[in-house]
Amino acid sequence: MQFAEAAKQIVEAGRWLDARSWAPATSGNYSIRLDADRIAITASGRHKGRLIPDDVLVVDYDGGTSDARAPSAETPLHTLMYRLIPSLGAVLHIHSVHSTVLGMVLSGKTELELEGYELLKALPGIATHEARVSLPIFENTQNMAALARSVTERWKAGQTGQTGPSVGYLIRGHGLYTWGSTMEEAMRAVEALEFLFACELERRRMPP
Amino acid sequence: MQFAEAAKQIVEAGRWLDARSWAPATSGNYSIRLDADRIAITASGRHKGRLIPDDVLVVDYDGGTSDARAPSAETPLHTLMYRLIPSLGAVLHIHSVHSTVLGMVLSGKTELELEGYELLKALPGIATHEARVSLPIFENTQNMAALARSVTERWKAGQTGQTGPSVGYLIRGHGLYTWGSTMEEAMRAVEALEFLFACELERRRMPP
Amino acid sequence: MQFAEAAKQIVEAGRWLDARSWAPATSGNYSIRLDADRIAITASGRHKGRLIPDDVLVVDYDGGTSDARAPSAETPLHTLMYRLIPSLGAVLHIHSVHSTVLGMVLSGKTELELEGYELLKALPGIATHEARVSLPIFENTQNMAALARSVTERWKAGQTGQTGPSVGYLIRGHGLYTWGSTMEEAMRAVEALEFLFACELERRRMPP
Amino acid sequence: MQFAEAAKQIVEAGRWLDARSWAPATSGNYSIRLDADRIAITASGRHKGRLIPDDVLVVDYDGGTSDARAPSAETPLHTLMYRLIPSLGAVLHIHSVHSTVLGMVLSGKTELELEGYELLKALPGIATHEARVSLPIFENTQNMAALARSVTERWKAGQTGQTGPSVGYLIRGHGLYTWGSTMEEAMRAVEALEFLFACELERRRMPP
Repeated sequence: MQFAEAAKQIVEAGRWLDARSWAPATSGNYSIRLDADRIAITASGRHKGRLIPDDVLVVDYDGGTSDARAPSAETPLHTLMYRLIPSLGAVLHIHSVHSTVLGMVLSGKTELELEGYELLKALPGIATHEARVSLPIFENTQNMAALARSVTERWKAGQTGQTGPSVGYLIRGHGLYTWGSTMEEAMRAVEALEFLFACELERRRMPP
Repeated sequence: MQFAEAAKQIVEAGRWLDARSWAPATSGNYSIRLDADRIAITASGRHKGRLIPDDVLVVDYDGGTSDARAPSAETPLHTLMYRLIPSLGAVLHIHSVHSTVLGMVLSGKTELELEGYELLKALPGIATHEARVSLPIFENTQNMAALARSVTERWKAGQTGQTGPSVGYLIRGHGLYTWGSTMEEAMRAVEALEFLFACELERRRMPP
Repeated sequence: MQFAEAAKQIVEAGRWLDARSWAPATSGNYSIRLDADRIAITASGRHKGRLIPDDVLVVDYDGGTSDARAPSAETPLHTLMYRLIPSLGAVLHIHSVHSTVLGMVLSGKTELELEGYELLKALPGIATHEARVSLPIFENTQNMAALARSVTERWKAGQTGQTGPSVGYLIRGHGLYTWGSTMEEAMRAVEALEFLFACELERRRMPP
Repeated sequence: MQFAEAAKQIVEAGRWLDARSWAPATSGNYSIRLDADRIAITASGRHKGRLIPDDVLVVDYDGGTSDARAPSAETPLHTLMYRLIPSLGAVLHIHSVHSTVLGMVLSGKTELELEGYELLKALPGIATHEARVSLPIFENTQNMAALARSVTERWKAGQTGQTGPSVGYLIRGHGLYTWGSTMEEAMRAVEALEFLFACELERRRMPP
């Protein structure tokens, strides 16, 4: 994809996410794969609901850039997913109240299981509500390299039949990472997962 | 009704429903009766908040179509209502957090009773808050033919005085089906029922 | 006030209320005093978020009209307030989830007490958060004449120091009536009361 | 800063805050430092979502003004922060449901502790989710001079290592005060704190 088109899609995704309260206070970061060497990713510290194309910069898969500005500190969590999944086109990381709270309410748990919802079918590869989708929950850390290693390990375990981040994962008290083959698919994943998080919280909120 | 007018009303309904968070992640499907042989219905997989008239196609009452695209997989649940109710003009099926959660909170129950609300009067044929409106709850299944049979049976039972889907029904963990003699009336039914679902959840959420 | 200006203010109030989900499914009715003989009030059955000036009609203080269309069935609840309060300029009746649920949660109670909130000062005549505002709660009924008598009695009792509907009242399972010397003041009262209802429900929702 | 630019920023902040339901019923007040002698601040009683530049007036650090209109009654709470923090550029005071309710739910407590959230990093000076941010909670009073003294005392205590209002404070049943070196930074602080308040309330709402 050309950089100009990628930047446009990232700017529009930011507006759409902010309008749903999923981009508070400059939080979150979004990326699109450009080619075999590079991704486009949001610069650090910009309000995601008010992005302009110039707030998007180019980095390689090691996070290196010729740009004078700093890419998001969480760039390694984006690049690793592009490395792990050859068909991946876009990654979205958001801070939402629901994804933040769910990870905290599930303290001590290392995954969130979603089961029995028709809307699971909005996620790629799911054809029935009888599917069980599991989102790994990672402990939050400011050590991006360590977090990237944990995600990679869980991903590789998931490939051999254990629980891996097939559609996304939570970082406790922090938010959601999800992705898709295109930005449109990644946005659909965010929308579906946030719907499911809202359902989960509503159900847990009911008095016994 | 002419196809062009039906497609326009469906597109506008999609925008209105999406703005209220009742059309997440391409979910839902909407239809309008065209004539004695055909209905207009949304194609599968489109985001309902961003429909264009070309996302609407024509099917007959058996779900057959000369269109190359796939109609919604839930088309049989639309056509059966047009068969059952001669005066019916429009059917809306939505996935909302409230309709999804209510069916799950009422696990084991086969109906949701709504009672004592003034807003019941926004539903067709209801003239007092003292009415009791019952919405059947069906178990979710990917077998559309089986679900269509269950809905038809409950409808026929309802016609003889038992509890039938007079204004709509829930599918557990899935969402709401409702309808009206026009798309405007169907939208009013969605709005009234979602209001009542919100009230029910608020009340059930209160600590004892 | 001229009818054209009153109709314009009513249309705009409807849009503003609907945008906040306080006018679902054609519910609610709004009025403005025109002169010593007449008020302007919404016609029955229109969606309040999509009003046009022609959806507003003129009735006298007995609810009589030369208009062929039906005024709201709740017209007597509007005219009685204009009779009771000479300075009154506008009346708003809305159906909101919060006002509907609060009346039901407080089953058996005949008033809602609001106390300790700074926002009470947005209500007319309140200068400190230490004020105690009481909203009467009436049982819902389809008998408008009976309900009008109950409201009148409570109002007169309130004038002699007992608890009366000084800023508004709730009808259980139905909604809120409030008012002001102008439509702007009535809208401010709705906004302040709905904020306070949201606070009350949040607090009651907390586990003990 | 020139008055015209300050008034423009205040008007825009009002629209942004109102769109998020943080400026109900004319509540709240906003200010920007103009120079060593004066601030610009909202006039009393205007709806903050519908401000015009003429609704902003100039006061000195003692609250004195040559303007015929009344500045907000809470002007002393603004001027004191500009005195205490030389780098301060803007102060926002809002009434939100969450900030109002949190203070009341924490009855008897004199601070709200926020801990373990990644979004804490959106607050100035915070570089890790492992930080602990404490917001003092003051009792509400109509005595602005007394409240200003309490805030000043806590601020000074905070400077010597005790708990002070480093990013903002709550007034019980009333709302939030926060600030920044620019209006943009103050808006970011509101957005981050309201997100954190929403998380706190969600977590406290969960049945044990």
